[in-house]
Amino acid sequence: MQRSIKTLFVANRGEIAVRIIRAAQELGMRTVLGCSTADEKSLAAQMADRVLMVGPAPAAKSYLNISAVVAAAREAGADGVHPGYGFLSENAEFAKAVNDAGIVFVGPSPKAISLMGDKAQARACAIAAGVPTVPGSDGVVEDAAEALRAAVRVGFPVMLKAAAGGGGRGIRIANDPAELESQFGIATREAQSAFGYGGLYLERFVGKARHVEVQILADGERAIHLFERECSLQRRRQKLIEEAPAPSLNGEVREKMCAAAVALAEAVQYRGVGTVEYLYDENTAEFFFIEMNTRVQVEHPVTEMITGIDIVRESLRLATGEPLRYQQSDVVLRGAAIECRINAEDPLRNFMPGPGTVGALRLPAGPGLRVDTHLYEGYAVPPYYDSLLAKVVAWDTSRGEAIERMKRALTEFDVDGLKTTKALHLALLEDASIRKGNYHTGYLEENLTEIVKRIV
Amino acid sequence: MQRSIKTLFVANRGEIAVRIIRAAQELGMRTVLGCSTADEKSLAAQMADRVLMVGPAPAAKSYLNISAVVAAAREAGADGVHPGYGFLSENAEFAKAVNDAGIVFVGPSPKAISLMGDKAQARACAIAAGVPTVPGSDGVVEDAAEALRAAVRVGFPVMLKAAAGGGGRGIRIANDPAELESQFGIATREAQSAFGYGGLYLERFVGKARHVEVQILADGERAIHLFERECSLQRRRQKLIEEAPAPSLNGEVREKMCAAAVALAEAVQYRGVGTVEYLYDENTAEFFFIEMNTRVQVEHPVTEMITGIDIVRESLRLATGEPLRYQQSDVVLRGAAIECRINAEDPLRNFMPGPGTVGALRLPAGPGLRVDTHLYEGYAVPPYYDSLLAKVVAWDTSRGEAIERMKRALTEFDVDGLKTTKALHLALLEDASIRKGNYHTGYLEENLTEIVKRIV
Repeated sequence: MQRSIKTLFVANRGEIAVRIIRAAQELGMRTVLGCSTADEKSLAAQMADRVLMVGPAPAAKSYLNISAVVAAAREAGADGVHPGYGFLSENAEFAKAVNDAGIVFVGPSPKAISLMGDKAQARACAIAAGVPTVPGSDGVVEDAAEALRAAVRVGFPVMLKAAAGGGGRGIRIANDPAELESQFGIATREAQSAFGYGGLYLERFVGKARHVEVQILADGERAIHLFERECSLQRRRQKLIEEAPAPSLNGEVREKMCAAAVALAEAVQYRGVGTVEYLYDENTAEFFFIEMNTRVQVEHPVTEMITGIDIVRESLRLATGEPLRYQQSDVVLRGAAIECRINAEDPLRNFMPGPGTVGALRLPAGPGLRVDTHLYEGYAVPPYYDSLLAKVVAWDTSRGEAIERMKRALTEFDVDGLKTTKALHLALLEDASIRKGNYHTGYLEENLTEIVKRIV
Repeated sequence: MQRSIKTLFVANRGEIAVRIIRAAQELGMRTVLGCSTADEKSLAAQMADRVLMVGPAPAAKSYLNISAVVAAAREAGADGVHPGYGFLSENAEFAKAVNDAGIVFVGPSPKAISLMGDKAQARACAIAAGVPTVPGSDGVVEDAAEALRAAVRVGFPVMLKAAAGGGGRGIRIANDPAELESQFGIATREAQSAFGYGGLYLERFVGKARHVEVQILADGERAIHLFERECSLQRRRQKLIEEAPAPSLNGEVREKMCAAAVALAEAVQYRGVGTVEYLYDENTAEFFFIEMNTRVQVEHPVTEMITGIDIVRESLRLATGEPLRYQQSDVVLRGAAIECRINAEDPLRNFMPGPGTVGALRLPAGPGLRVDTHLYEGYAVPPYYDSLLAKVVAWDTSRGEAIERMKRALTEFDVDGLKTTKALHLALLEDASIRKGNYHTGYLEENLTEIVKRIV
């Protein structure tokens, strides 16, 4: 059943709240921002037709408070709620509460959010849809002998992982049978002492992997992809630079990877925008499903730049039950785009975050350039939230030209009153490996000290 | 012979100087701005690597002073001079003086500038290249009888024009033989008293014509087109809104018009960027060559948006003798773009220009949007130059969506301290005929009073 959104409640802050308001306005929607009292003077608050406070900082008391957000959406008379990214955007309980209030949740069904939010279920869905996953043992291995049989099956090197673990803790890598045998005992004891349970499972270790993700649009019956993004340049699992298309893929792998993402989305009758994330092993040209994000991504603009399709506007359309407006053949990849996330952090002082008040502000502009930001002159950046200040996105007819355009843009970018990562990005764009597109998810951690030294 | 530009002298001001500096920086060039003392604090002056003064305001003493500009370019050690639009950009003498100083003039040869600058010669070139021109008499008609024979040949309605006239003065329209006979005597006497010479010539009158122009890139041997722009929304011959593609053209006419522009450019061995302007008669689907502009146009961004090709960067490349980097088949039209020129004029007070100082400034942003401007907070707009403050350009997958995006963008646009034409543009975008793409070069003059009344 198709419904329409006349009044959209924006349940987020910062640049993504601004982004959503713009998309809603272009579709003729009235916008109500639900923000914390710390964000009362934000750019999004100035742009929305109405502003309601959902609580004070920190986020737990406002942006993460389901009942407060739903109550505000009701008070606003909203027909739709857009959660943006982060906060409650992948919270199935929140999606259900919005739906129960008779309001359209701009995202997939609570069921789809739960399914993809559970790593084991998501992996099972991927396998069922024929999407490659990282080869591993079937659950916990009993002893070193069973571990060896599994390792031989999936191929060395392997990772031993604590079944009760998480967040990268309790992981041991073994390159051959001898190493596996010696590591097994150590890993078991470590798991036992860290998590109170010594059970281990095993997975192929994909070294020097790349993080490649495919953007999906789906209407519950049909899904299409908008090609992929490469997001391997990360520091502490935070993406710093993203690009589209992925410099590491050839046409054949791209096609397989995108087709697999479409197959997964269609298998779970996905509705909305979503992202299928992969590990990509350049040496073997194999890719493995990691997870599916059921919301708009921070880095969605690079995809918008190469395809011309407005992903946030599409998220609003698909949420109302509108069928997909595009055939796969309508989606044409043009040129290359790169995004630099400018954070309020000082790369010369171990990325110490530094909130402050924006003085003189110069934002770059010109052809093929886009800056998504919530900054304005005089804005006091609150200390409670993530440090993202601006996403500078450069498009050009080739990757090399997009990099030159980005350098020009970053040189123009100027914000007084805040320490930012701008100079780090300029150094990254001069790095020989990065310029060649030759990097993996560990590259930045391994080389950051050297690259930071090159900051001028 | 191919030369390279290491240092570019920018012989212009305002938004186009900013635009040229950005393009030059992306190509790794050093930039030197040659500006008037009135523009010492301009954005372009802040962005250039070096600034040299070429004289005081008004333009005659600086931007139009050939020897001062050439001397400054020499002093800068420039290898190239970009003239932008207006000022000396179509002055063959200037182009020659630059070349004589051993510096690359970013534009076609002085000969090509002269040729296209002379209406009669340009028309002759067009006819030789098979490009349709407005049918007319062969020069001056002796008497009413010869005028009638010519009128019957070219078809009514016709315009009688004073051979010694110009700027639209001394023009009489005749719809039939009787009217022609009665107007001939009046027009002769008017011409005699206004210009001291009563000679008249005659041309087909193209009523409710549209102004459509084709963007050309050429390297002296080969030319390609970047499709067309429609610029029919004009007030006093000043374009207010431009769009690409032209809403009035079908594919067949578009192809003919673009092919004719390419043929003309190749016939004159054109090198650089240029624009072939046509009158288009929608009723008969005929188009007629008006003139060729031998420089970058104000409205070039709409073409950049639909093709992805950076016209200013290409102008720099072609000037050095580099061959065209594109085949015609590389140029693909995607979506639709529209540009609104925001001027420092008050539409409610008969477009009175009002210079002033920029207070709080909010520039729109987001996907598919570009703002070319030289404004910044605190900038004192000098009273000596044209009133263009900003070009807001919106691209989207369709014309209708581009208009909605533009409305959103204009709503966001906010500049304190200056009266602007923003509200007029919002009213224009709500006009039913304009929304349908149903307008001609006289539309705005005919309806402006009514449309201005709708400004909210």
